[in-house]
This record gives sequence, C-alpha cells and structure tokens, in this order.
Amino acid sequence: MEDRILQKLQSFLFEATEEEKHTLELVIDAVIRKHTKQNGSYIGGLLQTSRRVIDSQTYEITIPNTALIQNSLQIVHGGMTATLLDSAMGSVVHQVLPQNKAAVTTEMKINYVAPGIGKELRCVAKLIHKGSKICVIEGQVFRDDGTLIAHATGSFFIIDRPTKI
Amino acid sequence: MEDRILQKLQSFLFEATEEEKHTLELVIDAVIRKHTKQNGSYIGGLLQTSRRVIDSQTYEITIPNTALIQNSLQIVHGGMTATLLDSAMGSVVHQVLPQNKAAVTTEMKINYVAPGIGKELRCVAKLIHKGSKICVIEGQVFRDDGTLIAHATGSFFIIDRPTKI
Amino acid sequence: MEDRILQKLQSFLFEATEEEKHTLELVIDAVIRKHTKQNGSYIGGLLQTSRRVIDSQTYEITIPNTALIQNSLQIVHGGMTATLLDSAMGSVVHQVLPQNKAAVTTEMKINYVAPGIGKELRCVAKLIHKGSKICVIEGQVFRDDGTLIAHATGSFFIIDRPTKI
Amino acid sequence: MEDRILQKLQSFLFEATEEEKHTLELVIDAVIRKHTKQNGSYIGGLLQTSRRVIDSQTYEITIPNTALIQNSLQIVHGGMTATLLDSAMGSVVHQVLPQNKAAVTTEMKINYVAPGIGKELRCVAKLIHKGSKICVIEGQVFRDDGTLIAHATGSFFIIDRPTKI
Repeated sequence: MEDRILQKLQSFLFEATEEEKHTLELVIDAVIRKHTKQNGSYIGGLLQTSRRVIDSQTYEITIPNTALIQNSLQIVHGGMTATLLDSAMGSVVHQVLPQNKAAVTTEMKINYVAPGIGKELRCVAKLIHKGSKICVIEGQVFRDDGTLIAHATGSFFIIDRPTKI
Repeated sequence: MEDRILQKLQSFLFEATEEEKHTLELVIDAVIRKHTKQNGSYIGGLLQTSRRVIDSQTYEITIPNTALIQNSLQIVHGGMTATLLDSAMGSVVHQVLPQNKAAVTTEMKINYVAPGIGKELRCVAKLIHKGSKICVIEGQVFRDDGTLIAHATGSFFIIDRPTKI
Repeated sequence: MEDRILQKLQSFLFEATEEEKHTLELVIDAVIRKHTKQNGSYIGGLLQTSRRVIDSQTYEITIPNTALIQNSLQIVHGGMTATLLDSAMGSVVHQVLPQNKAAVTTEMKINYVAPGIGKELRCVAKLIHKGSKICVIEGQVFRDDGTLIAHATGSFFIIDRPTKI
Repeated sequence: MEDRILQKLQSFLFEATEEEKHTLELVIDAVIRKHTKQNGSYIGGLLQTSRRVIDSQTYEITIPNTALIQNSLQIVHGGMTATLLDSAMGSVVHQVLPQNKAAVTTEMKINYVAPGIGKELRCVAKLIHKGSKICVIEGQVFRDDGTLIAHATGSFFIIDRPTKI
C-alpha cells in the first residue's frame, strides 16, 4: 500500500495546481497531527482549529477558510459551518460541567445569514442555560471582516463521562 | 513544495498504522477526484458520497463511515451528519427547481437521536413544501442496521442561478 | 364582582356584532367547560379541541378557525398554531409512555409554510424516535382544503409523573 | 342569542369560584377591547400585553400570568409562550422595516428551559440579522424572578405591506 500511495501522490504532483498542492499538504498534515495526538480527530486537523477559552461560559474556535471546507461555488459549505458550531458549542458545555460528566448534542438549529467567504471563520459559543440534565448553548460564526454568517442554538444532554479502562 | 510534501508523506508512512494509511489514500484520492472533476468539491471526495434520485421529490446520499468523519470517541461527528443532511436536502431542492433557479440553505434544525456507528450512513431527503420563494425539506440519516440517527428539517431560499461567464 | 361582570356584558351586548356575540359565548363556554372539567385547561375550551387517537404512534387534534385565534389580519396567529402543535405532539408522547411517566417539551421548531385560513385546522402528530430520556415528535397542521400550513419537530424530555396527593 | 348568553353567564356565576370570576371578566374584557380597537386581536386582550420599545432593535412585551394561559398543571402552556415570543419577535421586525414593508414568520425554534410560573412573563426580542429578504430575531422570556424560561430564534420573510382599500 505504501508504494501505491507514494506513486499516486508523486504522479499527481506533476499536474496539481498550487492550491491543490496546499490542500494535499493540509490533508497529509491532518493525518500526521492525529497520529501525534496534536488533534483528537482528523476533523480537527482538516479544519485547523485554533481554540481559546474567552471566559467561564464562552469559548472560541477560529479556522482558516481553505478550499477544503468550500462547496463547488467556493463558499464555505453549510455543513462545515455546522461542524465548527457543534465543536465550539460542545466545548462550552464541557467547560461548565464537572470532570466526571460529558454531553452529547441532542439538537441544533442553525440560521445561515451571509455567505462564508474571506480569510477565516471565528466561532464564539456561549452558555444560555445550564440545567441538571440539559444545557442550551448559543453559537455565532463571523467572517474576518466581522460579518455574522451563522447563528445557532443547541441542546446538549448531560451524561456520565465514559471511564477509560 | 512538491519535495517537502513527498518527503513528509514518505517519512510518515514508516510509522503510520493501517487505518492511517487508508485515511492517507482517501484524502489524496479526494484531492485527485476534485482535480479530475469527479467531485465538485473536496468535501464530496472526503465523504465519498454515492448519490441517487429516489423519485421526483426524494434524494438519497450514502457515505461509508470512515475514521475521517468521526470525533475523538470514534462516533460520526455531528457536523459531518449535518454536512450529509445539507447536501442531500439541497439536492432535493435543486431537483424540484427549474434549471435557471438555485437555492441556499437559510436554516436547518437537526435532532440527533442515536450515535453514528456502523459501516455506512444513508441520508434520505424529501420535499415537505415547495413555495415560490422558500422550499422546506426533511432529511433523515440511517445506519446500515436501519437505526435512525438524525432527523432534520430545513428552509432553502430560491434565487436566480448565477450565470457562468 | 358578579354584578359588575353582568352589567359589563349586558351593556356591551347592545353594541356587539354577531361575530363578537359568538366570541363572547365561546369564551364564557370555555370557562364553564373548565369548571365542569370537560377541559383540563381554559386553552382547551378556547381552542375547542377535538381529540382523536389515529394509531399507537399518531394523534390528531382538530380545532375550528374562529376569530379568537386570529391575528389582526384575520389569519391564524402563529402562536395558536404552535399551541395546537405542542398539544398534539405532547399527546403522542404521553400515548407511548407508561402511566407513571410524563414528558415536558424541551424544544420545538415550526416551519410556517402557508397562511392559516379556512374553516378548521387539523393537526396530526406522530412519533419519530422514542429514546429512554427523550422522544422526538413530528407535527403537521392542515387547513380543511388539505393545504399544509405548518410543519414542526420537537423534543420531549421524559420525567416521572408527579404523584397526586 | 343575547338572552342565552346573559342567562348562561348569570346561572354560572352562582357556582363560579373567585378565580373563574376573574377569568370571566378577563375574557369579556378581551372581547370589548377588540371591539373598541384597544387591541388589534382577541389574543392581545386575552394575554393582556403591555408593549414597550427598548431601543431601535429591541422590543419588550410583558403579560400577567393568569389561569387563562396555563396548562392543566398550572404552568404556562408552551404554546402561550410561543405566542408571546412570536408577537414580540414580529414587533422587532416591523420596527426595523420601512412603513411599506411587512413580514411573516417562516420558522421559529423555541428552547424551553424552566417552567413558566410566577406573577408575569417578560419577553425581550432583538434583531440578530437584517437581510434584504429575511430578518433573523432572537427572543427570550423571563419570569418576574428573572429566571429565563424560554429562548427562541426565528426567521421573518419580508413582503410588501398589503395596502388597505
């Protein structure tokens, strides 16, 4: 398999555009980052997430806008915006829960209000309500020019954290 | 850049697991498929979508469940389920619209009801309402054992199709 | 207070239109129906709900379209459609739960697709998913000409039924 | 009909509880208020809405918590909370639109986070996004003790205001 992969890459590199070469490096890096545990999932690497706690109830994830997350019209795919929102909103929940608890998304609604273009997307998620069983979170995604592109609310059901063996 | 990419891949292949090698081939294939226009976007290649018209108001997309779309708990990331839903639901809209019209997602709500596991995910989207300005679509995602994992409804705003120059 | 209420009604009846007289009788009947326990709430009487089990997972509520539930443009108020949906969807949940369990609405999304006009509104609610903690329900509201006016999905959290003392 | 209504009220007043008498006066007042155009709809009178512009993008409606809006467990019916939200959120849209434009609700999602109890409910709605065709609005409902009971987001489609003849 190793040889096949290398040959496939080598022959494709002759005809690849600059953008495609960047994308190739990005996807290979994502696999390496998962291997070295710099990311817990391939998605984190593909999206190149930068994570930041803003305050005890607010969390931010920023990602560059690459061809990898765009639809065929060069606009960020709504599903990628949803991925960014779900990640940031889930991070707020885990931030407000004790160590022995985790949470799963039970529902999320997203309003898409402007096209996802520009250099990067910044998602800010914050706590709306912390119940004993369900947390409700708000998420907003902004372009680098400050324009809001998506607004979401979601419910997260609190469970006992699965213990590792 | 070509040399750096090749060397990066070559040295990583020594330590990559079988799963990581498969993932590497998958992501490289996704870039090649976009280049050869077999897919309109990288996302289509990364998700390995199989598309099928079921009837005039119903559309199906099936994707294999690979490590690439999973979160750190080996369950399909909610954002990837959203990506699948948005793609299939948008396809229904374009199916019922005339050639000179297109549509953009204005909102979508997803209820997540079971974990995304198993060999593949099948999304069935169907028309709920066709208005002059807005279409409402329902989407359901099933595991290969038939279990429903997500149910969604969304609104798509109808626009004039951007004409290519 | 009795005298004031009677006098208020008596003097108003001189200037009331036929529609207003019908509405007066309807609202007074709603209070009487609550008193005689024909309805568990005033809302049930004001909406004049007719309830019907369709099958083990489907429930129907029909209400007449009266001036009482309309906005200032003589179209059924979106909040009244929501009330009808929440009632019918909650009834499905209680239908599928054992006697010692109850449920509360945690979220509902409604898509409004056509104006609520005509003689009556018929709401059909059915089970989408029954989990151990959360049920997901779909509701649809139709005019008497068969036109769909609203489509909803909602989550209901299952609780122990409060025991009466 | 006048005699029948009066007699019905008169005989019921003998057995009505204090709460039922208050409710009777409230519903009769609602019909009178509609007649005298103090309210544009019966619903406004039944809910006893107090309206207030907070700023150019924020609108508030407060209603007393009466038996009339409660379910059979003496908690505010989710549909009545939805009615309050839809009214306040629609008011924000009309506030930001020019005189010759109106708007209709195309979708609304409500998260219910605490039971509606206490003396009154206060709904604050504010603009999230103003597009050329669609406005997105947020609404929150609070008890008089300040507890958030519901959070909503909704889309409003902008239309030309129907001209009166």
